[in-house]
Amino acid sequence: MSTLSSDGGRRRPTDQGDVRRHNAALVLATVVSDGPISRARMAAATGLTRATVGSIVDELLDAGLLREHGTSSATGLGRPGTDLALAPDGAAGVGVEVNVDGLTAVVVDLEGTVRHRAARPGDQRDRGAAAVLRSAARLVDAALEAAADLDLPVEGVGVAVPGLVDLGEQVLRRAPNLGWTDVPVLERLAAYAETPWPAAALDNEANLAALGELWAGGHDPAGSFVLVNGDVGVGAGVVLDGRLHRGTRGFGGELGHLTVAPDGPPCRCGARGCLEQVAGLDWILAEAGLPPASGSTDDALAPLLAAVRADERRAVAAVAGAARSLGVGVAALVNLFDVDTVVLGGVFADLFPWLDEPLREVVSTRVLSAPWAPVSVQPAALGRDAAAIGAALSPLRALTSDPLAPEVAVG
Amino acid sequence: MSTLSSDGGRRRPTDQGDVRRHNAALVLATVVSDGPISRARMAAATGLTRATVGSIVDELLDAGLLREHGTSSATGLGRPGTDLALAPDGAAGVGVEVNVDGLTAVVVDLEGTVRHRAARPGDQRDRGAAAVLRSAARLVDAALEAAADLDLPVEGVGVAVPGLVDLGEQVLRRAPNLGWTDVPVLERLAAYAETPWPAAALDNEANLAALGELWAGGHDPAGSFVLVNGDVGVGAGVVLDGRLHRGTRGFGGELGHLTVAPDGPPCRCGARGCLEQVAGLDWILAEAGLPPASGSTDDALAPLLAAVRADERRAVAAVAGAARSLGVGVAALVNLFDVDTVVLGGVFADLFPWLDEPLREVVSTRVLSAPWAPVSVQPAALGRDAAAIGAALSPLRALTSDPLAPEVAVG
Repeated sequence: MSTLSSDGGRRRPTDQGDVRRHNAALVLATVVSDGPISRARMAAATGLTRATVGSIVDELLDAGLLREHGTSSATGLGRPGTDLALAPDGAAGVGVEVNVDGLTAVVVDLEGTVRHRAARPGDQRDRGAAAVLRSAARLVDAALEAAADLDLPVEGVGVAVPGLVDLGEQVLRRAPNLGWTDVPVLERLAAYAETPWPAAALDNEANLAALGELWAGGHDPAGSFVLVNGDVGVGAGVVLDGRLHRGTRGFGGELGHLTVAPDGPPCRCGARGCLEQVAGLDWILAEAGLPPASGSTDDALAPLLAAVRADERRAVAAVAGAARSLGVGVAALVNLFDVDTVVLGGVFADLFPWLDEPLREVVSTRVLSAPWAPVSVQPAALGRDAAAIGAALSPLRALTSDPLAPEVAVG
Repeated sequence: MSTLSSDGGRRRPTDQGDVRRHNAALVLATVVSDGPISRARMAAATGLTRATVGSIVDELLDAGLLREHGTSSATGLGRPGTDLALAPDGAAGVGVEVNVDGLTAVVVDLEGTVRHRAARPGDQRDRGAAAVLRSAARLVDAALEAAADLDLPVEGVGVAVPGLVDLGEQVLRRAPNLGWTDVPVLERLAAYAETPWPAAALDNEANLAALGELWAGGHDPAGSFVLVNGDVGVGAGVVLDGRLHRGTRGFGGELGHLTVAPDGPPCRCGARGCLEQVAGLDWILAEAGLPPASGSTDDALAPLLAAVRADERRAVAAVAGAARSLGVGVAALVNLFDVDTVVLGGVFADLFPWLDEPLREVVSTRVLSAPWAPVSVQPAALGRDAAAIGAALSPLRALTSDPLAPEVAVG
């Protein structure tokens, strides 16, 4: 039997360099959560000696990640000093989202502020991977240039795609709505880049949107929620105890392919009655009697929003129908993961006022624990750029969780 | 923004007593994974000094958790000693499962061997909570007596129930198939007990079955799988990276109430078309034209197994129909959690040869990542006592992960 083996951790004492890097992350995290903060209060908050705090702070000031800020708020003995604050210009991340309805690139600084944004709206489904990725590379090139103009050192590039990402190989295995299979996205982007990029990483768009929502959406950093991102496709990013749950192979959160109508319409994935076939934007537009999305999501959404605002019966019924299917999906998430918060992003955030009530009704009927454990369903904080922003925040997150890591060259 | 705060752990250095307890757990875990093992090899495997190993081993020998075993397998200098092995009689756990089709209690020793088993088969649905829990208390009293006769010190009692358990309050919130709501199971059991029990804990049966499967089923102790337990109800226990995922409020894994047929038959939970209504034992028996389960599951299952073994068309079709609905549920688990292994327990384990093919077909169509990430569906190792065994293993697990913890009196 193996009754005992998973708890007996075997971590060896870490070496001095590791301790220093860990302490630097702790100091930086404390500035983020409690700052601006004096060195003395920092020592008290972290349990580190003043000498250790002082020398780590010097390194972080040198690295441009911290800055001196006004006069210390500390009270007590000793001469007043200055407080420490995050240096927003100390580092930036570039994020690009490649999606069915267009491409978006952003530059985000250390405080989470979007400093540059450029988009190429329009349907990408018939352009082919080469053309789409060439456009995406152009957007990233331009974002890197913008960051250089703003004097922002770029830590890395995050790339969001709407499909199954093999994280180890950094290959997009399957994006049914783009019709792509086994596309080595990063390799292609690197080939199309005009100048060499800093380290780049590929991930699923719902995962990155969930990370964006976690880091910049004002959530409990150790909390649990599921972000459900709606567009032509529907995806979910699952955050459990402040960490993204990607699954064993990184393929988790495929809510769009949950079966909600076993004999329903065929899906691009090969199955029938998948959630995105009866709750995605294409279905809603068709049910509402509106033209299908062919350009940007904003263009497709505008007449739908106008119709529901004017209380047009067919449009309201279409959104309510999508809400009921979505409710089956949300109930599945809550019954299985037992999260207490579901965040609706993408077009679902725009349509939230009309989705809310019918969705809530289904959830309250279909979630077994609903009478004892209420579920909060809320619109996303970040809007439709959530995945691009999450992609840009990823390298910043890596930097701030290990600010003194030796720099590693990445191809 | 809160970009950084979740990673900067603030754990203070532990005190000497904590270090000693941690090291004791490490030594015990090493005996389990590598034992029988000499003190010298133990020191090498754990990185502890020989003196530390020696003194911890003495304490664990005194506590009856380890025993000396034969002659040391160590090679090298110095005089040969004896190896250390687990002492199977050093401690035991008592587990009791309260379920729709009957009650089962077991005594399990430190090696995971069932040393005593007693059951009270029969439908519990119309007996009422008081009568059922009185019977359960009798079974636990008898199990404690049996353990005393076997000279096994009982660490604690685990109680498995088929419903939503409020872990904090230790109250069964809702068990739709028993028709129970807000039953303080532990309090009642304690009131009915003939003699005082050691510490007792309540948990969901699918969760405990999953823990039993994890600890005694030969799985990778750090692996991920979902155990789907089938009976009249259907529940799931989700193990991610070797840990049970109970959800934010402990209400996760309610696979039985996943919607697989939105307009399907009404469920006892108040919703329609829940998985257990179209894949549970009652549905299979009705579809097969067999009498409903009224006594034990074994009695109800016998004619069904006879029929499928005889290749009777109606019975085979009923099981295949359940398998297709179950496939929708399994596909949901894999699409959302991205586990690579699904373990079928309860009656699904007995019916596995007839479920396997139709289920596999649905899973391969409905799991988006199936072509890149194969899913293994397999019958459970433990059989129908999995939940009772998991319940009995729980206190042993707690003991072995902290063998030198000061004893705490529990009411």
